[in-house]
Amino acid sequence: MQVNFSTVNFNSKSFEALQTNRYSTLKSVPTMNSNLKNVSFSGAFIKGMDLVKKSKFSPLEAARLSYQPKLPAVFKNGILALGITAGAATTAVADSDKIKELFPKTYGQPALTFDSSEKMSDAKPHKVGVILSGGQASGGHNVITGLYDALKGANPQTQVYGFLGGPKGLIDGKYIELTDDFVNDYRNQGGFDMIGSGRDKLEKEEQFESVLKNCKNMGIDAITIIGGDDSNTNAAMLAEWMAQKGEDIKVIGCPKTIDGDLKNAQIETSFGFDTATKTYSESVGNIERDMASSKKYWDFIKVMGRSASHVALEIALQTHPNMTLISEEVEAKNMTLGDVVNSIADSVVSRAKDGKNYGVIVITEGVIEFIPEFKSMISNLDKVLPEAEKDAQYISSSMDKKYEKIASALNEDASKLFKSLPSNIKTQLLTEKRDSHGNFPVSALETDKLLIEMVKTELAKRKEQGTYDGKFAALSQFCGYEGRAGLPSNFDADYCYSLGYSAATLINSGKTGYIASVSNLKETPDKWIAGGSPVTMMMNMEERNGKMKPVIQKALVDLNGPVFAEFAKNRENWMKEDSYVNPGPIQFFGPEEMCDKKTMTLALEQA
Amino acid sequence: MQVNFSTVNFNSKSFEALQTNRYSTLKSVPTMNSNLKNVSFSGAFIKGMDLVKKSKFSPLEAARLSYQPKLPAVFKNGILALGITAGAATTAVADSDKIKELFPKTYGQPALTFDSSEKMSDAKPHKVGVILSGGQASGGHNVITGLYDALKGANPQTQVYGFLGGPKGLIDGKYIELTDDFVNDYRNQGGFDMIGSGRDKLEKEEQFESVLKNCKNMGIDAITIIGGDDSNTNAAMLAEWMAQKGEDIKVIGCPKTIDGDLKNAQIETSFGFDTATKTYSESVGNIERDMASSKKYWDFIKVMGRSASHVALEIALQTHPNMTLISEEVEAKNMTLGDVVNSIADSVVSRAKDGKNYGVIVITEGVIEFIPEFKSMISNLDKVLPEAEKDAQYISSSMDKKYEKIASALNEDASKLFKSLPSNIKTQLLTEKRDSHGNFPVSALETDKLLIEMVKTELAKRKEQGTYDGKFAALSQFCGYEGRAGLPSNFDADYCYSLGYSAATLINSGKTGYIASVSNLKETPDKWIAGGSPVTMMMNMEERNGKMKPVIQKALVDLNGPVFAEFAKNRENWMKEDSYVNPGPIQFFGPEEMCDKKTMTLALEQA
Repeated sequence: MQVNFSTVNFNSKSFEALQTNRYSTLKSVPTMNSNLKNVSFSGAFIKGMDLVKKSKFSPLEAARLSYQPKLPAVFKNGILALGITAGAATTAVADSDKIKELFPKTYGQPALTFDSSEKMSDAKPHKVGVILSGGQASGGHNVITGLYDALKGANPQTQVYGFLGGPKGLIDGKYIELTDDFVNDYRNQGGFDMIGSGRDKLEKEEQFESVLKNCKNMGIDAITIIGGDDSNTNAAMLAEWMAQKGEDIKVIGCPKTIDGDLKNAQIETSFGFDTATKTYSESVGNIERDMASSKKYWDFIKVMGRSASHVALEIALQTHPNMTLISEEVEAKNMTLGDVVNSIADSVVSRAKDGKNYGVIVITEGVIEFIPEFKSMISNLDKVLPEAEKDAQYISSSMDKKYEKIASALNEDASKLFKSLPSNIKTQLLTEKRDSHGNFPVSALETDKLLIEMVKTELAKRKEQGTYDGKFAALSQFCGYEGRAGLPSNFDADYCYSLGYSAATLINSGKTGYIASVSNLKETPDKWIAGGSPVTMMMNMEERNGKMKPVIQKALVDLNGPVFAEFAKNRENWMKEDSYVNPGPIQFFGPEEMCDKKTMTLALEQA
Repeated sequence: MQVNFSTVNFNSKSFEALQTNRYSTLKSVPTMNSNLKNVSFSGAFIKGMDLVKKSKFSPLEAARLSYQPKLPAVFKNGILALGITAGAATTAVADSDKIKELFPKTYGQPALTFDSSEKMSDAKPHKVGVILSGGQASGGHNVITGLYDALKGANPQTQVYGFLGGPKGLIDGKYIELTDDFVNDYRNQGGFDMIGSGRDKLEKEEQFESVLKNCKNMGIDAITIIGGDDSNTNAAMLAEWMAQKGEDIKVIGCPKTIDGDLKNAQIETSFGFDTATKTYSESVGNIERDMASSKKYWDFIKVMGRSASHVALEIALQTHPNMTLISEEVEAKNMTLGDVVNSIADSVVSRAKDGKNYGVIVITEGVIEFIPEFKSMISNLDKVLPEAEKDAQYISSSMDKKYEKIASALNEDASKLFKSLPSNIKTQLLTEKRDSHGNFPVSALETDKLLIEMVKTELAKRKEQGTYDGKFAALSQFCGYEGRAGLPSNFDADYCYSLGYSAATLINSGKTGYIASVSNLKETPDKWIAGGSPVTMMMNMEERNGKMKPVIQKALVDLNGPVFAEFAKNRENWMKEDSYVNPGPIQFFGPEEMCDKKTMTLALEQA
């Protein structure tokens, strides 16, 4: 029996578009007859593939080029045939007075929802700039194509410019005009390579002046900044600055980050989190099967997430590893490094008693920075080391002597912790290049290897004491860059494309200082709610390099929330049993329950 | 338009089987009506998913449980309605006289092909044992289910036993009887966890005696050994031993290894290579997109393959990285470590001239062992170090002093090379635990990091000389364990299931000392040719631990073959341009050209 999946999206419309617009080599793909319900796709597909091959696309990349992202129903006739419902005036999430003072022009705007009341009916032509800011997240290209399609659909005279290499391109005035031919190659593709990205901050007066000059020269009246919490904070600052100057240049943000920490009452999730966690869960699931087969290793898998552990938590819920270190919990419980090591050793011992000398531990990349005593030691070391390095005798000492000298110069707690570390970590602490503020770059520490060494030592101790009688061999793995730029999942493809439509609607209705939003994500895309929220309502005041700054409040893992609760409820069982689940590689074609499945995080938070 | 893909394989037969056999929680899945051509799969699927969730399967794992692997046409009515064509007597690939002398009973048997002449028509009941040997490779479970289904289909009285934990289970007599309920949970699933695996060799007289005793106790008349070249060599030895003893216990091998180096005129590919290289290519393709987006890193990606570089070569053909180190070429060109470092530095410099301070380099895990001067240094070091360690003064020296002492004790070439290494590598060379023969475990070296450090040093030199003016920041990544136990691709699922049928046919026709084979793999499965080849015809004599032993000749990358030629033809272009291709995650449902695509290695070798 052959099954006709409802989510297969090689539709004839997108194939016709592919013929005429996408790239010249595909122009001869035969048009498919949309009346043939049961036609085999193979003919056109093979011809497409042959041509595609020459254009350096893989078959899957080519297939994804013609995927038509799903949109909220409100956008079914584009962005003109809709109205906007405004809520009450908003405040900030904290420090409202200060935020209001800093954002006199853009503070307090209402949250907006788009509805189908068809109030708008025409659009003046715009010139719109767009930038990608910060680390890659799958779906960035779809925000741009959504923005592009919506704006061009509303008024074909509208022009869209992609500034190159992130904020720097906007500041330096380096850009490319987006055209059908150009953007079509990036539909539903991963990466940020369409216009590149960069990590420059956009926050200084002279940078704003440059942006203004460039926009005026080009006639640009709106900018879309696609980025994380810092980039959207910058977007709000730029919006406010333009408004204060009386310049008619609007700024709209879009919520991106695989870390999942740009999330609040208005933003249900940031894009890229879905694809990244699914990509990592594929690896973790595969490794679990491997460990359960050979039964001889503990694999310590470090996963991305420096400031928050949403990624690790989502992976845990999808794959059920034996243990998962959640930074926020480590901090909340004020755990020492010894506590963390002991908790891992306890699991190893417990499983060894059941004859299981293997397992999988997922470690959040940033966990070490959440251990209070470790933070104190680093800060003490950052003071002690420069002093020691003034001493020629120290400089010429052997590493062992250096360890001794530093240990004796540190305060008691720091010294004790320092001495307990494996020598390769001690070496790294003494020799790694400090950042411009003289701080040790904690992210450079090989946390997985540090923990493996210390667990080994602890287990050896227990063996001597007769409380442990197993074998311990460890592997380590990093789930990192391969999760940031993969082909976006159906969810990220749909969500991002919809965000692009929301951003276009905000621009077309003259809004500024807003972040595009698409919510009600637990439902199918047609039921998603599109709108925009003032960035200031997500802000509070926080210290940055010694100064209080207005920033979007980062969402850490809520230890009292439903996502952590689901994890906490199951983890004891996952530790003991082999409850491993392998989500496998992301599937794009097949039943919705498999291909359009949302993250557990989203499902539990929206339940 | 909805498209009905011909390769979607949720067929009603397998769903009925799922209901009655697989696992109790699925018993209430509604039967699907096989006459409904256009029915949406969603209803049954969702209910299946709900139940499956409780059984700890992911939606994709559950969907794969009901995939019906495709078989060669000869097996369309099982393994009884077919005949066997025998070729001429065979010889060995080299050292025929010696192999003949060592395998008097099993040497020279003809290669066999199964045809549809329907000579066989019944089967006596067998008792068959099966083991998985060595590292995981996707599809192992399907060899077992193919073997099981074929044997049970031929005679339901036949019993199949899985020996646990690899060869050790066979030696120690630890096993489980395979039943429908048991095996159905593992259909088309990755890993070797159904019966576990192990790395014990099966080669000693007393081991063979144990195997014989266990088989006699259990009434077993045939054993299937699923493993790599060493395991199949062992299978041939066991087959010969049984024949010489006059024992009626047959031994059949099956070709497994993700490394792709068990390959010859009879075996077109080993299973697991397809899934592993596709899994790694997904990661490499994602990382390429990431590098091309941020444009600021060179990523050094180490991939599995200690003895051969087929994996790296296949990844290169699928993803077009800027550079790929092929061990066989490094050895053939007698490259020094300095040559390798220079060749990488040359690429970095060349791309920097085009303003590209980023790229991706794929490195075969074992490349360092193929550098002749490095091998010499290690062998010199293995002699020098134990002597040095007898000296108390050496033991108490600082690492820097140790480096000096060792460098002065090494011969001139070794000393020069040793001194050129980064200090963390020198430390590792002096401190890493030696193996039982006193040899340094080269595989423990962090080749990627070694190369990064040395390239950095070389680039700094060139910068000083004024021949390089770029920026160099490097990342490293390992594509390893996550590629061995993933859900098998359609190809591996089909190939392995067919191998199981071939093994069953060989057993049912009383053969021993054969390896199951399925060839003509460039065609669709119905055209595949099933049969068996005597293991001895793949053998030659090689030195192992100082003794000449009969072994299956390993297939290294043929530098004059079509696969390497395709790589060599393109690599200059891939180095300069960003010709990156992202194959994306393995797809199971969709057009054949995407889901059943074979490796480039297979396509080029069979072209």
